[in-house]
Amino acid sequence: MMVEKLDQRSNDLIRRKIAQLLVVRASGHEADSEREYPEWELSNFELQRLLAKGVGGVILVGGNAFELQHRCRSLQQWSSSPKELLLCADVEEGIGQRFSGGTWLLPQMALARIFSKDPKKALLLAERYGKCIGSQARKCGLNWVLAPVCDVNNNPSNPVINVRSLGEHPTTVATLACAVQRGLAAEKVLSCAKHFPGHGDTELDSHLDLPVLNHELERLKSCELIPFIEIMKAGVDAVMTGHLVLKKLDEKYPSTLSKVVLKNLLRDQLKFDRLIVTDALIMQAISNSYGSSEAAVLAFEAGADLILMPENAEEAIDAIFQALQSGRLPIERLEHSIRRRKEALRKRKVNLPEKISTSYAVYTETLQSEDDRALVHEIAKASLEARHRNSLDGKADGLNLIRVDSLMSSNILDKYSPAILLPERFGYKTFISHRLGILPWLDESDSPLDLQRFGKKPFLLQLFFRGNPFAGNNYLYEPWKLIIKQLQDSGLLDALIVYGSPYIWEDFLSILDPSIPTAYSPGQVPEAQYIALRTLFKVDKHKEQFSFRGFDAFTD
Amino acid sequence: MMVEKLDQRSNDLIRRKIAQLLVVRASGHEADSEREYPEWELSNFELQRLLAKGVGGVILVGGNAFELQHRCRSLQQWSSSPKELLLCADVEEGIGQRFSGGTWLLPQMALARIFSKDPKKALLLAERYGKCIGSQARKCGLNWVLAPVCDVNNNPSNPVINVRSLGEHPTTVATLACAVQRGLAAEKVLSCAKHFPGHGDTELDSHLDLPVLNHELERLKSCELIPFIEIMKAGVDAVMTGHLVLKKLDEKYPSTLSKVVLKNLLRDQLKFDRLIVTDALIMQAISNSYGSSEAAVLAFEAGADLILMPENAEEAIDAIFQALQSGRLPIERLEHSIRRRKEALRKRKVNLPEKISTSYAVYTETLQSEDDRALVHEIAKASLEARHRNSLDGKADGLNLIRVDSLMSSNILDKYSPAILLPERFGYKTFISHRLGILPWLDESDSPLDLQRFGKKPFLLQLFFRGNPFAGNNYLYEPWKLIIKQLQDSGLLDALIVYGSPYIWEDFLSILDPSIPTAYSPGQVPEAQYIALRTLFKVDKHKEQFSFRGFDAFTD
Repeated sequence: MMVEKLDQRSNDLIRRKIAQLLVVRASGHEADSEREYPEWELSNFELQRLLAKGVGGVILVGGNAFELQHRCRSLQQWSSSPKELLLCADVEEGIGQRFSGGTWLLPQMALARIFSKDPKKALLLAERYGKCIGSQARKCGLNWVLAPVCDVNNNPSNPVINVRSLGEHPTTVATLACAVQRGLAAEKVLSCAKHFPGHGDTELDSHLDLPVLNHELERLKSCELIPFIEIMKAGVDAVMTGHLVLKKLDEKYPSTLSKVVLKNLLRDQLKFDRLIVTDALIMQAISNSYGSSEAAVLAFEAGADLILMPENAEEAIDAIFQALQSGRLPIERLEHSIRRRKEALRKRKVNLPEKISTSYAVYTETLQSEDDRALVHEIAKASLEARHRNSLDGKADGLNLIRVDSLMSSNILDKYSPAILLPERFGYKTFISHRLGILPWLDESDSPLDLQRFGKKPFLLQLFFRGNPFAGNNYLYEPWKLIIKQLQDSGLLDALIVYGSPYIWEDFLSILDPSIPTAYSPGQVPEAQYIALRTLFKVDKHKEQFSFRGFDAFTD
Repeated sequence: MMVEKLDQRSNDLIRRKIAQLLVVRASGHEADSEREYPEWELSNFELQRLLAKGVGGVILVGGNAFELQHRCRSLQQWSSSPKELLLCADVEEGIGQRFSGGTWLLPQMALARIFSKDPKKALLLAERYGKCIGSQARKCGLNWVLAPVCDVNNNPSNPVINVRSLGEHPTTVATLACAVQRGLAAEKVLSCAKHFPGHGDTELDSHLDLPVLNHELERLKSCELIPFIEIMKAGVDAVMTGHLVLKKLDEKYPSTLSKVVLKNLLRDQLKFDRLIVTDALIMQAISNSYGSSEAAVLAFEAGADLILMPENAEEAIDAIFQALQSGRLPIERLEHSIRRRKEALRKRKVNLPEKISTSYAVYTETLQSEDDRALVHEIAKASLEARHRNSLDGKADGLNLIRVDSLMSSNILDKYSPAILLPERFGYKTFISHRLGILPWLDESDSPLDLQRFGKKPFLLQLFFRGNPFAGNNYLYEPWKLIIKQLQDSGLLDALIVYGSPYIWEDFLSILDPSIPTAYSPGQVPEAQYIALRTLFKVDKHKEQFSFRGFDAFTD
């Protein structure tokens, strides 16, 4: 009886330790009814229960930055170890990417484009980029930023990394990633390099399916691993695994579940002794082939310390507990992961703010600094590429045809977006093409744009292509290249602007008449739209048209 | 010198009293950068300054209910008379209409439609309707609800009242309005009947232009005034003026600025001695013809107590002060308005909550009650009208063509809306027609729908027409009636659902083949969509398709 009780107590302790290694998903909204993805985001009841049981991490998505402060405080209060709770978010482009009210920077690719022209400037901007994310994360109550992306984007058709990457060159990616890391570290938040051993050369979206790569270790060492090796030297706090099979290294398991990749390569060869965290286990690349419990045990067995978004947190705890009990896993694996977790928290001295604000004074005056605001504009301006600047005049009767992936719940376009409002001021009528709308082209035609519908009017084309997770690269099947040809052949193309993927813009450039004004921005945020349009239009003549919600304050 | 100082002090006191009578507009968001309409919503800096000067009311729009609690507290802290600050919102359809996280009920018209079939049930629902709005308003920190709408909607083309009204019959509107009023009063929030002397017979949107009506007083007494007279007897706390000219009563001034309408009719004849508040003075019906200061003085001179959204608050204070100094206005007017304001606040004992919540426990568990949730479903179910229930089967290859005013920042449609997701489960592909998209029809044709583009497939038509302020009734120019005819003549119309205006549905019914399944809901919220679709589709055969985010919990 006595022994049983002792056993029970020690079993409970082991379960609590395992629980510490899980990172579960929650909405940034306080209210269950406001969750955007209730099938993935735990209810408050479930969160309270799991945090009381010792679950050690929460990844937050959605809501606004003001609410987030309160949310982080609530989660901390529910936790059995409030001061050791990891609170993280996928804010690789700034808090504003996931939480309104925060700064949304241009994607990392913008830094790479600037680097190719002015490396010194790019490095300064990259460090500020990290500081901007880190300082706002900390003010909101987050202590762990899942950035930077360290994948070398050597495949232009990559549907899920693309503009999230710091470019196509391993050393550029490495140098810029270390600069972002410095910025994050300066703000005392934990960082995370992703997605090991490199997700840049895939054509499949691992949210939907499991990519398989044929690279040898030598190739990885000469390319994909370089940014990881450098940022590990620079002190990155964690490395996130990628859901992709490197079949020359491990024919069977994706990296997230592969002992060869995590234990042999990352721990033993590259000597990384800080945190390894899996990418979300609920992603279909994993969940299509592995049950919830088995995926968690395999990841832990392979060498991961933290398990991100297991399909079912309690089943994951049970399964790892069983694996420890049965001897499949040595108890030292658990102790090592617990140690690494403690060390990470101690090193950054991360903690939640003492007091949360309930008023504007503490909140807005300090969340977005003037420097943060200026940073967005500086990156938008420096990363813009354009031909025939200051050449477009207002047309009395032009058409502004915009292409976006999705217009519903869009965080790129609203009625005040520069992409809509500025051309309107010059007399362009707006049309938006998007997935659930009626498309502007007809099938089976060399001149697909339905000009009968639009009339023979000059077009301003603004095309947003980003390669979003889940959206895949469906846009490759859209006939925009043919439409550009059709319009310029008919003398109806006023200008072309591409926001997002540089590869698509470069592909368009190959057929674009050099006399046609064009611009490219890696970003899609309002500032990117403003700068692109302001660069192409004749500003001197139309200064008042560009007086616009504070955007103009930073441009001259 | 002594006299001057005394004068100065008494002038300051008068200015502070005038300031109490203003209601200025603020975003529900704490952060300036998150304001949705910065041209109308004061910055925090301006709010702090004006509230410190004694401005006595704020109307809030936008944000979420959780943030709103904090926002109300901040505003109260900035006010020189925190306990007497009026905090109001245009939440005539529930807190969720303006602040996410709150309950968004169906529009008032739903109660009228239920009343025509089951008056007893409608009255019970109307009282709960008022209680739902009132209780959530109070929990969020608001003390004044700008509801109910008391306009008799006797003009089906009304672009701005329409579904906001309690119907077309004066006595129905009166009875239901009094029930809503009882609900609001039970929750100890101030109420407001609008828009005196009746905005139901207009074809112009007063947000855009000034409607002119030719009605005699006798006609008003036999129709428009009835709901106002009844709700005043029932104890409504305030009456809001309408921006419309009743030229038989006052040829020159719109009611908001008319002494004949406010003083002679409302105060003297109808003996209303509680608060009169103007509709927003910045609306173009007023601002097109009257300067900011003059509009405020005229409204006050005409008999209004509270001035809502003057173009410039300080100019309004100065102008009213000058009018008092010059003798144009007697000082008693000021004292009477101050007295009515005090009496209103005292009567309802309204106040902000002692403690605001920073956690889920206080917030979500209490904001939306189970009864609130059930109420939305009950109203959606009871107000639904349909033909050929339970008759639609899943088509392998149908099209779901949806019409909305606007898809950008839509609060009706997102990727999880029943109108999109449910038909998808039955194999319908979604197409959305909206203002900035490419339209599904071709001009100049008796068969406008571009069937070549869609192919000869069966259509489910879901048309959202509400008559929104600012949107006007542009939809009247869209060829939906012809499209319905075209589809049914081609045997391609599976079903027609109209959400919103009953008049448009009834117009469609006049040409719709009686064999075609159809449904109408006055509401556009997800619950209305769910109930309409669930009613038309064969649920018994496809029960699992309708298992849906908790909507099904209330339907059987």
